[in-house]
Amino acid sequence: MSDCQIHHRSNEFKEIFKTASEGLRGIFETRQDCLIIAGSGTATMDATVSNFFSSSDRMLVVRGGKFGERWAEIGEAYGLDVDAIDVEWGRAVDPEIIRTRLKNNSYAGVFFQASETSTGASHSTETIARIVKEEQPETLVVVDGITAVGCMPVRTDAWGLDIVLSGSQKAFMLPPGLAFLTASDRAWDRTKSSDLPKYYLNLSIERKKQQGGQTAWTTPTALVLGLVKALEMMHQEGLDHIQQRHHALSEACRAAAQAVGLGLLAQDAPSRALTAIHCGDGLDAGAIIKGLREDFGIRVAGGQEHLKGRILRIGHLGWVDDGDILRTISAMERVLSNIGHSFDCGAGLQAAEEKLRELSL
Amino acid sequence: MSDCQIHHRSNEFKEIFKTASEGLRGIFETRQDCLIIAGSGTATMDATVSNFFSSSDRMLVVRGGKFGERWAEIGEAYGLDVDAIDVEWGRAVDPEIIRTRLKNNSYAGVFFQASETSTGASHSTETIARIVKEEQPETLVVVDGITAVGCMPVRTDAWGLDIVLSGSQKAFMLPPGLAFLTASDRAWDRTKSSDLPKYYLNLSIERKKQQGGQTAWTTPTALVLGLVKALEMMHQEGLDHIQQRHHALSEACRAAAQAVGLGLLAQDAPSRALTAIHCGDGLDAGAIIKGLREDFGIRVAGGQEHLKGRILRIGHLGWVDDGDILRTISAMERVLSNIGHSFDCGAGLQAAEEKLRELSL
Repeated sequence: MSDCQIHHRSNEFKEIFKTASEGLRGIFETRQDCLIIAGSGTATMDATVSNFFSSSDRMLVVRGGKFGERWAEIGEAYGLDVDAIDVEWGRAVDPEIIRTRLKNNSYAGVFFQASETSTGASHSTETIARIVKEEQPETLVVVDGITAVGCMPVRTDAWGLDIVLSGSQKAFMLPPGLAFLTASDRAWDRTKSSDLPKYYLNLSIERKKQQGGQTAWTTPTALVLGLVKALEMMHQEGLDHIQQRHHALSEACRAAAQAVGLGLLAQDAPSRALTAIHCGDGLDAGAIIKGLREDFGIRVAGGQEHLKGRILRIGHLGWVDDGDILRTISAMERVLSNIGHSFDCGAGLQAAEEKLRELSL
Repeated sequence: MSDCQIHHRSNEFKEIFKTASEGLRGIFETRQDCLIIAGSGTATMDATVSNFFSSSDRMLVVRGGKFGERWAEIGEAYGLDVDAIDVEWGRAVDPEIIRTRLKNNSYAGVFFQASETSTGASHSTETIARIVKEEQPETLVVVDGITAVGCMPVRTDAWGLDIVLSGSQKAFMLPPGLAFLTASDRAWDRTKSSDLPKYYLNLSIERKKQQGGQTAWTTPTALVLGLVKALEMMHQEGLDHIQQRHHALSEACRAAAQAVGLGLLAQDAPSRALTAIHCGDGLDAGAIIKGLREDFGIRVAGGQEHLKGRILRIGHLGWVDDGDILRTISAMERVLSNIGHSFDCGAGLQAAEEKLRELSL
């Protein structure tokens, strides 16, 4: 990223850009175009609604966290008819509830998170996509894969996902500033009839330009240079290995939390990107987060909305390995001990080690 | 930018973000909020129309280059009634033509470029703003200052400019990826009645969050870290000095072009950000651009649309000094000589030196 910046309209940069686009296809498991957008992941969520849908459309949203809520908010901002399935934060949606809705209503798209970053839960992408195809084959399957793509299976083409999103600061190990989007041919067909206004996020203009190796508007060149390097590293490690590494880190983190007497917010269907640890009634999540930051320089996130103070979220996505997770568990054990929580010293590390040994490739 | 990335929701980052926002105020010469948006300059152009205007509004656009055209395209994308004043590429608009239009029509906003990057011309921001106030005080004055802010006077508060835009890759010396926008109180009042849909670029949500030191969506943290450093450098040099430096570089470049027998596209009102050199009928601009790149490693831009092959655009914006411009003129002289253009060797450098000595502080 610190290399000399190359002008985004030069032939030299076009080759770099094409390498990045091509590399993304491998991680998104698709042969479709993967667009690179200057903006945060929310930019591609907005663009999904405003490009592939129309004001008269009805959308079905799985709302099981802050990012599920965001799909609904965007739909409402553009005047669509939004139907939501409310799911308790931390749980995955029961795909059969989606089936029932589809039997009784007609939707232009079903929107959900492959990994709900606010809760650490993972909705069952493959099953939902299959049910949508069975019940309403014309309905688009829209997957927010922002924290899922790369770190857990999101098989765009094989599962028939119509729109899949991600962002540079997640599995791609870069600073924030780029978002990615891929879409199926039938999704692109919808852009022709979309009546929603857009300019900066007009994906049809973007797609045409990006097929020629340029973005429609000015490219964040430093981040694209970083992306080429990140994709090279990812392809070198291999997608299966990356996903298995994230699975091992997730399972190690979950086992450690339980071994020291803490709970898990996402009990049945965890995301591999992060672990949301439920502190229970006696413990203040804020005190643990503060201890990790101040005494160990380790930053973990708290809860959002009604989960504030009740959970802590450990991100283990991207440039993270066994050593990082063990160091974090060790620090968490010491912080817990300092605030008077009782458990067997080293129990978290031991439980984590068992999982890491079992699951590492 | 290569510093350890700090999470954008942390208190530590909030302080950094506030420093950046505050520093921007000085460069925009305003006491208003300066918003930082993840995206290219076009994102803030889009956001200007979709937040401060409504579908029933009529807008007046000065269309004297590719970016003037862009204002009109965005207005049309959102269904506004777009009136344009077409200006020959390379010329500045005659402000009295704007006065005449305002006498005969009612507009919600007048849109123009303080510096038209496609031609190197500069529309007279101060005069246009005064005329709008005289003729139609309710009309918003909307200034694309993307290549102007920082390098030439754009006195937001003193001149009563309602909306002013810029971007990280211009006077701010950073890679692309951030765009900036400031707006007057009366512009913010318009957001309450705007009927255009938006979500990612909803500036009211952004403003509220940014007043607390955060962006609404994920922040490109690396670029913001760079912005703090860039603003520190800019404040250290001083805005007057920066603007005078750009003035000297511009005049030097223009004098050099004429001294070696080339023409200037923007004859009467040059931007200080770039110089568009007209090659005349006997010379191929493409050959000069190629020679500069291949023989000297110097990148200059060509023309856009009908000016392709006819002009070359030398950017002298941001991290540029006398040495850079002299080196470029020397290289241009040698390339011109190689392709058989005749002029006195060193004439360009001599003319440039006279201007640099006269105008440097």
